[in-house]
This record gives sequence, structure tokens and C-alpha cells, in this order.
Amino acid sequence: MAYKIAVIPGDGIGPEVIEAALHVIEPLIDAEFVEGEAGDECAEKHGDPLPEDTLELCHEADAILFGAAGETAADVIVRLRQELDLYANIRPVRGFPGLRELTGEPYVRDDVDFVIVRENTEGLYSGIEGRFRDTAYTLRIITEEGTRRIAEVACDLAEERGSNTVTCVHKANVMRETCGLFREVCKEVVESRGLEFEEYYVDAAAMFMITEPERFDVVVTPNMFGDILSDEAAALVGGLGLAPSGNVGDRHGLFEPVHGSAPDIAGKGIANPFATILSAVMMLEWLGEDEAAEAVREAVGEAIREGVVTPDLGGDKKTMEVAEFVREAALNR
Amino acid sequence: MAYKIAVIPGDGIGPEVIEAALHVIEPLIDAEFVEGEAGDECAEKHGDPLPEDTLELCHEADAILFGAAGETAADVIVRLRQELDLYANIRPVRGFPGLRELTGEPYVRDDVDFVIVRENTEGLYSGIEGRFRDTAYTLRIITEEGTRRIAEVACDLAEERGSNTVTCVHKANVMRETCGLFREVCKEVVESRGLEFEEYYVDAAAMFMITEPERFDVVVTPNMFGDILSDEAAALVGGLGLAPSGNVGDRHGLFEPVHGSAPDIAGKGIANPFATILSAVMMLEWLGEDEAAEAVREAVGEAIREGVVTPDLGGDKKTMEVAEFVREAALNR
Ligand SMILES: CC(C)[C@H](C(=O)O)[C@@H](O)C(=O)O
Ligand SMILES: CC(C)[C@H](C(=O)O)[C@@H](O)C(=O)O
Repeated sequence: MAYKIAVIPGDGIGPEVIEAALHVIEPLIDAEFVEGEAGDECAEKHGDPLPEDTLELCHEADAILFGAAGETAADVIVRLRQELDLYANIRPVRGFPGLRELTGEPYVRDDVDFVIVRENTEGLYSGIEGRFRDTAYTLRIITEEGTRRIAEVACDLAEERGSNTVTCVHKANVMRETCGLFREVCKEVVESRGLEFEEYYVDAAAMFMITEPERFDVVVTPNMFGDILSDEAAALVGGLGLAPSGNVGDRHGLFEPVHGSAPDIAGKGIANPFATILSAVMMLEWLGEDEAAEAVREAVGEAIREGVVTPDLGGDKKTMEVAEFVREAALNR
Repeated sequence: MAYKIAVIPGDGIGPEVIEAALHVIEPLIDAEFVEGEAGDECAEKHGDPLPEDTLELCHEADAILFGAAGETAADVIVRLRQELDLYANIRPVRGFPGLRELTGEPYVRDDVDFVIVRENTEGLYSGIEGRFRDTAYTLRIITEEGTRRIAEVACDLAEERGSNTVTCVHKANVMRETCGLFREVCKEVVESRGLEFEEYYVDAAAMFMITEPERFDVVVTPNMFGDILSDEAAALVGGLGLAPSGNVGDRHGLFEPVHGSAPDIAGKGIANPFATILSAVMMLEWLGEDEAAEAVREAVGEAIREGVVTPDLGGDKKTMEVAEFVREAALNR
């Protein structure tokens, strides 16, 4: 049975990296790719950055591949996460051999391998805010149910990875109620699953992520902390050009690069497609297409080892040249 | 006229690093050092981690030098920040030549030099939280007045440093009210001071801090973001052992290392005293003792260049051996 995949290229480099990712996976999967509009251009055209059509398409699709949105990113992606109840934002931080040498960046770690499981629907993203005279407020909300389900996802991942530990990152010494609840429920879930519960305050975690990333394996953390830590962690693997993500719930899955629309390099054909290709890999895995997923991931590793990379990684290849190489390498596996 | 300096050693390595810092600055400043109790041990003894006596001492003193508190850290330090209205948390991130080689850590940057100006009394540290059935909430509060005064501090620092830019780090695309207000007021203050306003979303800033720290000079940011980013940035200069801070308001100044009480190495005499010594340097500067401050800072640089450092920096010196070296080097200037 053919999958129906919703594809939302969006703004800036979004269409370029999506084209690249589709070029790679098209021959590997029996799927119909249906394009939807969202983002700045879409808002200009239709007066809405996330029209009903697109939402409907996402609801019907078996999976969603998303590029990037510009100024309207929050209106698009935060809304999609809420509408589709994509409560787990899974952000793997996985190095590739050769990356440090290629980039020449001393902070890059070829051997790093952990995953950030970011709660994706609560916390400071509640949207509950306002202003009274000179005072503005935002309500940070953490629920027991919301925490329980994200903790379960983290435990599932730990089991898949053969890890025996889940690390909770919070700030319960200051936010005793919200982070206190998050910590407490995570601990209960993790221990009830027979796994070990570890914890760090978010500030300490932010430091150790650079100085001792090997401390981390499966990290579970509230929404905003996950947002910050996952961008930070992208530095370890060579930047946002290499950071994929999956937004998943019980029914839907949306896969997107962590990077944005990068208007400064849009239209030049030099955007790094790896983050989107690796997001497509996560999509394939989520659909159960493990073989195809593995083939593409290994093909990306090959491209990196052979230096077939875009300028941000020190190479001189174009987006589609990289995609072509990865496509062929994946097909030859 | 002699200064009256309140000294709060606290828990764990607190007393050790404080002893070291006092050893260095005693001969350089005409001051009476009056000790106050706070922290875990104090709570056990007196049933209160921050007794009235200590608070009173802090209110009277010309400046406060603080070591570290253990489990009760939040009760002690967050309360002191509120009680004394220490609204600006100033966290310089300044490398020392020789640090990368000494530590052998590739992510260390000898040449980095920026400062994080963290709002210290509002945001997620409001203390306004609670639970209703299965839902916990924390109120993030940003006020116009609170933002204005921290922005002014950032501008003062920019002027002192001869910088023409202040960089605001926020997440106004998601927290439109609180971060929106913060951004708006910072922009207004910075531009009214004839300086240039720059801005980053906090997630992007967390990445660039590692990949391109040279982008930053004076960074102004809300409380929790500043907490996270400053620990992260400490990695760049060799870890928390080298990260000093000043909590200052219009009347009071409290100076403390960014690190905590490190119970695992307490009592061994091997704690790195640099963060506390550099905090004392900030205190000297704040008191107007610029010559003494400069002498100590240069003496710390000398210690690092000569490898007179504790084990965390790859050396074999004890805390007080480092202090003795720095004291002599400072006196010889
Ligand atoms: C665009 C923005 C709303 C979004 C977020 O904060 O979640 C992005 O930074 C991300 O991490 O996916
Ligand atoms: C101990 C803790 C409450 C404190 C904070 O979060 O401010 C510490 O992490 C710091 O950065 O000074």
C-alpha cells in the first residue's frame, strides 16, 4: 500500500532542502507526495500562514515532511504541533566520522550519540500570556498527563537504543511546582519501566553538553529547555545543517530540520540538505521502513566521509549534487 | 575609610574558595571582613538557610563575597537577590591565554571576551507558582521597569568596554508578551543611548555561543535564559572553575562564583579558586579599587600561563597554593 506523505516546503531554503530529501527517498518508498502550502509566502498569498487545506492534508497524511517557515514559523509549526498533538519532539544528536576534520571545528564531536526528547505541547509554549499595564506574563504549564506521555516516549527510545538510563533535565530547585512535577512524574515513569533515572539542572546540562557530552544518552526535558539545548547540541555535530527532528504523537508524525528558512542563502542552491534528509530518515523509521532508513543514513555517512558536502561544512558541492550522491549511494546498498 | 565586606562561605567547597580569595585580596584593600552564615549547614544549625543576622549583615555591608550553598542554594541566593534588589547578574566570559593548551580541551577559547547581563529578579524566578489537580503552573513575569534598568546596565557596560552594540537574547516569536516586552524595551533603551541593537532567539544564541562566540560582546537576556547561557558559556573558558559573577543593584553588590558547592571534591583542598578570586576582582572594581582589581586579574593570568592551577585545569596544585601564587604575583605588580 502506498503511503500518502504531506510535503510542506515553506519559505527560504525550505523548498531546496525538501527537493533534495525527496530526490533521495523517492526511489526507496512507495508513496504519493502531496504538497501543501504554509509559511510567509503562503500568508502573503492567502492571508493565512497555515490554511485549512494544509491542515486537512496533514490530518489525512501518513506522515508529514516539513521544510522551513520564515517569520511566521511559530504560527505554523507551534500550531501544527498543537493541532496534530505532536507531543514528542525527538532530536537526535549523532556525529558522523570525519565531520571534525571536514569542518575544521574543534568543538565538533564525531562520536557523539544522544537524543533529546523535548516535550512539545506544554511549558512556556502554552500561548497563555498577556499584559497588564507595564507588566507582561506568560503562563508555564506542566501537566501530569503531558509529562507521563513524554517520559514514556523517552523510555521507549532508551529501550530501542539498549540504554538503561533516562536523564531528566529540569530546574526544580527554582520552579518547584512545574519542574517539580515534571521531575517527579519522569522519575516515577522511568523507574516503573525498570530504567535508571538521572537528572541535571538545565544550567549544568547546558555546560556538560559541551564539556562532557558522553554523559548523555536519552534526555527528556520540557519544551523551552529542549528548544535551547537541541540547538546548542547541534554545534557538536557540525551545526544546524546536520540536526534533524521528528515531531510525533500517537497518530501523526511531522519531520523537519531543526534549522530555519535561512533567507541569506536561499535561492543559491547551496543549502545543506543533510538535516532534511536525516529528518526523512526519521520519517522512514517511524513508518517502519527501517531498511530504507538505514540505507539513507549510511549514504549520508558516506557523503561526509568522502567530502561530498555543501560550503557550510567546508565543501564546494551544491544542494542537489549532495542529494544525487546520497541517492545513488543509498540505492547501491 | 575601611570597607566592611560581608563574607558568606556557605557549604561544600565554598569555605575553601573563599579562604583563597580572601588570602589574595586582604593585603590589597583596607577592609574589615565579617563572616555570615548561610546554606545547608546553617539551616541544620539554625533551622534557616538564610538567618536574619546574615541578611542584616548584607544590608549593612559595602559589598558581599559569597562562596556556595548546597541543596538550599535557591533559598539563599534567589532570596538575597530579591531582598537586596540585585537586579543585574553580570557574568563575564573571558578567556586567558594558555587555557586551551592547559586543559587540552578543544572547545576552550583563549581569546573569547563577552559579558552576559542576566536580569536577576523577574522572569521564571517570580516564585509565583502552584498546582491545580494534575496541572502545575509558574508565572513568568517581565516588567517594563525591570527591563529598562537591566538594559541600562547593559548599555553602561557596553560604553565601558568601548562596544557599540548590545545584543538582546529572547524568544519573542513564541513568548510574544513577555519576551516581546523585553525586546521592545531593550531596543528602545539601547537606541536611545546611541548604541546598536542586535538580537537573537535564545536557541540560535545557544548554538552560536559555541560555534561563533565572537558574535557576542554585551548580551542582555531574561533571568532563566541568562542562567542557562552563562553556564554554557563557561565551557568556552575552561569550565565553571573560571566563571565569576556579580549580582548588583543600585545599592548592593554580591559577588560569587557561578559554580556550586561541589560536594564531591569538598574538603580535599583541590577546588579551583579562580572563579571566586575573579568574583573578588569584580567586587574590587565595583568598589572603585581598579588598581587592585587589575593587579589580581593579571596575577590570575600569570598563574594560568605558568600552569599554577588545580587538577580540573590539568594542574597538580592545591587551592591555597594557587592562592599564594596569585597573592604574591598581585603584590609584585
Ligand atoms: C520556530 C520556533 C517556534 C521553533 C520552536 O521554538 O520550537 C523552532 O525554534 C524549533 O526549535 O523548532
Ligand atoms: C542555585 C540557583 C538557584 C542559581 C540560579 O538558578 O540562579 C544558580 O544556578 C546560578 O546561576 O546562580
